[in-house]
Amino acid sequence: MFELIRRDGLARICKLDTKHGVLETPALLPVVNPRFQTIRPRELYETFGFKAIITNSYIIKNDDKMRPDALAKGLHEMLDYPGTIMTDSGTFQSHMYGEVEVKNDEIVNFQREVGSDIGTVLDIFTEPEWGYEKTSEAVDVTLERTREAASLKGEMMLAGVVQGSIYPDLRERCATELRGIDADVHPIGGIVPLMENYRYADLVDVIIASKKGLPPNRPVHLFGAGHPMLFSLAVLLGCDMFDSASYAKFARDDRYMTIERTMHLADMKGLDCDCPACVGRSIDQLKAMKPAERADLIARHNLYISKMEMDRVKRALLEGNLWELAEQRCRSHPALLDGLRRLKEHQDFMERTEPLSRDGAIFYTGPETMNRPVMHRVAKRLKERYTAPRTDVMVVFEGGEKPYSWHRADDIKAILDVADSHFYVMSEFGPVPIELDEMYPIAQSLFPSIQDRDMVDRVREQMEDLAHTHQYGLSCMYDGESTAEMLASLSKGKGKFDIDMARVRAVADYQFGKGAADALFSGKVELVKSKNTEKIRNVIVDGEHVVSMRAEDGFFTLRPPGARRLLKTFPSPRLRAVVSDDSVPFNREGKNVMCGFIIDTDEGLRPSDEVIIVDKNDDLVAIGRIILTKYEAEFFKKGLAIKTREGIKGPVTSA
Amino acid sequence: MFELIRRDGLARICKLDTKHGVLETPALLPVVNPRFQTIRPRELYETFGFKAIITNSYIIKNDDKMRPDALAKGLHEMLDYPGTIMTDSGTFQSHMYGEVEVKNDEIVNFQREVGSDIGTVLDIFTEPEWGYEKTSEAVDVTLERTREAASLKGEMMLAGVVQGSIYPDLRERCATELRGIDADVHPIGGIVPLMENYRYADLVDVIIASKKGLPPNRPVHLFGAGHPMLFSLAVLLGCDMFDSASYAKFARDDRYMTIERTMHLADMKGLDCDCPACVGRSIDQLKAMKPAERADLIARHNLYISKMEMDRVKRALLEGNLWELAEQRCRSHPALLDGLRRLKEHQDFMERTEPLSRDGAIFYTGPETMNRPVMHRVAKRLKERYTAPRTDVMVVFEGGEKPYSWHRADDIKAILDVADSHFYVMSEFGPVPIELDEMYPIAQSLFPSIQDRDMVDRVREQMEDLAHTHQYGLSCMYDGESTAEMLASLSKGKGKFDIDMARVRAVADYQFGKGAADALFSGKVELVKSKNTEKIRNVIVDGEHVVSMRAEDGFFTLRPPGARRLLKTFPSPRLRAVVSDDSVPFNREGKNVMCGFIIDTDEGLRPSDEVIIVDKNDDLVAIGRIILTKYEAEFFKKGLAIKTREGIKGPVTSA
Repeated sequence: MFELIRRDGLARICKLDTKHGVLETPALLPVVNPRFQTIRPRELYETFGFKAIITNSYIIKNDDKMRPDALAKGLHEMLDYPGTIMTDSGTFQSHMYGEVEVKNDEIVNFQREVGSDIGTVLDIFTEPEWGYEKTSEAVDVTLERTREAASLKGEMMLAGVVQGSIYPDLRERCATELRGIDADVHPIGGIVPLMENYRYADLVDVIIASKKGLPPNRPVHLFGAGHPMLFSLAVLLGCDMFDSASYAKFARDDRYMTIERTMHLADMKGLDCDCPACVGRSIDQLKAMKPAERADLIARHNLYISKMEMDRVKRALLEGNLWELAEQRCRSHPALLDGLRRLKEHQDFMERTEPLSRDGAIFYTGPETMNRPVMHRVAKRLKERYTAPRTDVMVVFEGGEKPYSWHRADDIKAILDVADSHFYVMSEFGPVPIELDEMYPIAQSLFPSIQDRDMVDRVREQMEDLAHTHQYGLSCMYDGESTAEMLASLSKGKGKFDIDMARVRAVADYQFGKGAADALFSGKVELVKSKNTEKIRNVIVDGEHVVSMRAEDGFFTLRPPGARRLLKTFPSPRLRAVVSDDSVPFNREGKNVMCGFIIDTDEGLRPSDEVIIVDKNDDLVAIGRIILTKYEAEFFKKGLAIKTREGIKGPVTSA
Repeated sequence: MFELIRRDGLARICKLDTKHGVLETPALLPVVNPRFQTIRPRELYETFGFKAIITNSYIIKNDDKMRPDALAKGLHEMLDYPGTIMTDSGTFQSHMYGEVEVKNDEIVNFQREVGSDIGTVLDIFTEPEWGYEKTSEAVDVTLERTREAASLKGEMMLAGVVQGSIYPDLRERCATELRGIDADVHPIGGIVPLMENYRYADLVDVIIASKKGLPPNRPVHLFGAGHPMLFSLAVLLGCDMFDSASYAKFARDDRYMTIERTMHLADMKGLDCDCPACVGRSIDQLKAMKPAERADLIARHNLYISKMEMDRVKRALLEGNLWELAEQRCRSHPALLDGLRRLKEHQDFMERTEPLSRDGAIFYTGPETMNRPVMHRVAKRLKERYTAPRTDVMVVFEGGEKPYSWHRADDIKAILDVADSHFYVMSEFGPVPIELDEMYPIAQSLFPSIQDRDMVDRVREQMEDLAHTHQYGLSCMYDGESTAEMLASLSKGKGKFDIDMARVRAVADYQFGKGAADALFSGKVELVKSKNTEKIRNVIVDGEHVVSMRAEDGFFTLRPPGARRLLKTFPSPRLRAVVSDDSVPFNREGKNVMCGFIIDTDEGLRPSDEVIIVDKNDDLVAIGRIILTKYEAEFFKKGLAIKTREGIKGPVTSA
């Protein structure tokens, strides 16, 4: 069973139930070579805290001494490891050395017999240089073997591998077909050659294509990925499990891992690591050690640094700045930067699970930041959901600290006194309607003041677009007062623009879809403002409190009268989650909606979106926030689907 | 005494001799509050390895208990600290609380009397909001007080502070005047408000303006800068010393430093630090500790992480990738990115100390990479030192993996058979003459394949520039063979372009200046190539070995016949260092040239440039590589100025 605990877009923290404990993901599984155990499995568990390892069943099965031992004692006793043991099948050996002398059913049965917690199918390693036809056939064989393995797995969990080389459609087809097979974990295989050749952009395509097809309720394992430089990007793309043989292999060649790269010890001019293996040592001491001792120490360091980075990635996920971390880490190598830049091609897919907002500010790290799905959403929703008012004059305020003015404030006021006008603020997002300037991510993004060419060009292009949609434009910039101050003074005068009403209307349409403003605010509207900040807090319509505006992200929290208005306007399942009858009484009491109790959901809803919980008769049951999208909720069997904020007492039933 | 040990541009590792030991810089000096010692000074020295601390003489002098104690025992015994103690004067207190009740001579005398190793003048803290006139007057007072302090310092080293607020000309004037005053260390003061307000671009301007004026033979201390997020950028700009009171102050407010930012403990969702303070602890354990214990632990963590980052910066400097580290670190916050971007304005100044080449590859991290001084140099020298041949046809090869051709290879060959042609390779540097395509940094730079707008625009602009300088152009791109293969096949045919001669000539002019190719290669030229790589290794002219070409950076190493040819062509001091008579015999034996023995140097020479060492009669003495530029060598009293590679035996003298 695989349960989602926390998420940020595709990235997630989950729990995987295994026969030997619950594994929290994202997790790195150290590879234990059954022949040479650089670090004892028991120590990996107790000292390092690795609750799962991976070892190779093919090597054990082919070894006349280990095979009977494993069959007699079981893997856990043989390796003296109390946690989760995953086994590989020999596929990687076929990539390294050609064919392997074992059949799929033999190796699956063997893994089950020795008590592997997660056994792996003998899939076909699809090499990057293979042609399309050959790869497609290998995918078919892999799927056939996975079906066979599923029939043999018994109590063992099964790892069903996604193959398809660098062909996104084959990866997606393989992944989609795996949905229908009773597997438990999905490694993405055949990627080691991509990583060895720094083809990170291709790797990104492979991961995304696989994620598109794979069922979201099973963990995704990036097979053979164990370098910390990749963790943040891979977790961002929804990878849950990783394995590392490199920590020990590299150590034997004096290769020392850092978060950015691998260094040959001979090239290192210092030691700046406080991990338990390195602390207190100098680089000269390390170089002077006996080779075997040194390899042992470097292997430990490599594991500590890898674990630390995985913990760092988890923390970033929880603190809402995984994008920032990944964008920073991807500057470690131009090829990783390529991987990051490739995400631009996958904005639409990533937007589907992109939360409405996050805690904390967005930090601009470079042009790549503007390709994040949340930025893509701004452009998309401004086009689809924002209605520009029909006005005589469009005014664009240019921000910044430049000490000159294009028009004197008096002149502007004189024009606005006679004209029906609308206001934009020039920003790094391009010209933004002033009524949306407090909404996430527009107000919550921090940019450098020195702009790059991508930024300059994009803003100029959007300015030109806007100019074409309005008949009369007026662009002004002036010193002294801030935009807000000027606007306040304007709105106190004869200006016809009501920014407050414009704001609640524009935010409603942006958040809930076009038409939401009409639905929510028809009637006599009263705005309750914060006394401290003068910002809108509550919107009362015809005496009913329909929505509250959140200070942190500028979006609305729905109140029952608002929910009812939306229900009336938008046909089911828009903005709704329809829950089953056995869930209704609990949700009415304010309890959360669990996976498995949802009949239908609006597929337009995104994580952290407001959702109206209704019963089969479309009666209001509760209001909450979405955790799982419609697509995801259909797969997960355990855990929260919707966090309920407010249950609505139902009519008293006669029963 | 301050000695340069290793450098990379303005960044440097030095040794500062003090009465209490030799301090290796760059160094972070923890601030010890004489009243509350969060961590005992002895422990800072022994456990943490901080060989210098800073404490406040003004607080001690104003405390009726501490003052007599300090005067009786001296600071070192009072604080129980065996290393270097620097003292501040009370200036920062004047910034915090207004005027201080002490005079400059009193506080300088007091610092000397209590045995401070480095005492500080009572300078005027120039606030960022001050006007120009007020700031200018404060600079004058600061300089006057520094002169007074210098007359009183005795055996104590004196810290003479650069003031001037955000006015670069005042900073530079102050720094330049400090050159003539007998001070030993130069803090850059008045910058705390800039850091508090994230004005990193302004901070960069202040540092550069100060560096322009300050004597290069004294350490530069960034007063009040103690956050690890800033270390890599500040060291890159030539800052040598830092101090941190934040480690303890932050700890008392539960503020936890990471390399990227400061976190409030309450906002932290995990702990991913292996430092001796944190190792083995969870965030929940940390949060559950008693406040005093927790503050103690966080203070220790803050110091460990700061020290680790300083060690990381030093390692990057030594390994030649400090630029990569700083560019990565500056993505921690958009304001730091602004600081990085501001460096574009200081390219000319930074180019003066930019080495000819570095070990290892240049990693492109974003548009900022192309603003590095080494990139600026490429553009500059291509314009000033490269002579494009007069040809009928200019051919630009477009690289990349695109599977189509603009012209078929046969067509190109047919054209070239009848035309006098010249070749460019399209690259991220724009079109590069093919004969320079193995030279640093052109061949040693790695770029992502997905380009940003800055890159696309710059390459296009340079392509357009090139098109204007040639009458006929032919741009070709084709699949199959690589550019090199195609060129090889062309040069075997009737093509008139001799790439090997073009290469040695172009590199010679690029490296030594226009005219060097004529000087070095007039006569019968023979090229000796590597059997393995087929690359040029040695150039023999009229039977004499004039230069060798280095595989790692594509530049020349001078041999004596080459040096003699250059001496004949270029008037003194071009390409030379003129050394004094007492140095000559040592240099002829191959010994290095030490500071203080140089009479004149070519001011065009850059660190790691080849230099011809001559005596006063312009006779060849030795050949070496420059460590200090002409300007720097005039200041340093100790250490290496030139690394001699080959001494030249002189004529037998009659004495």
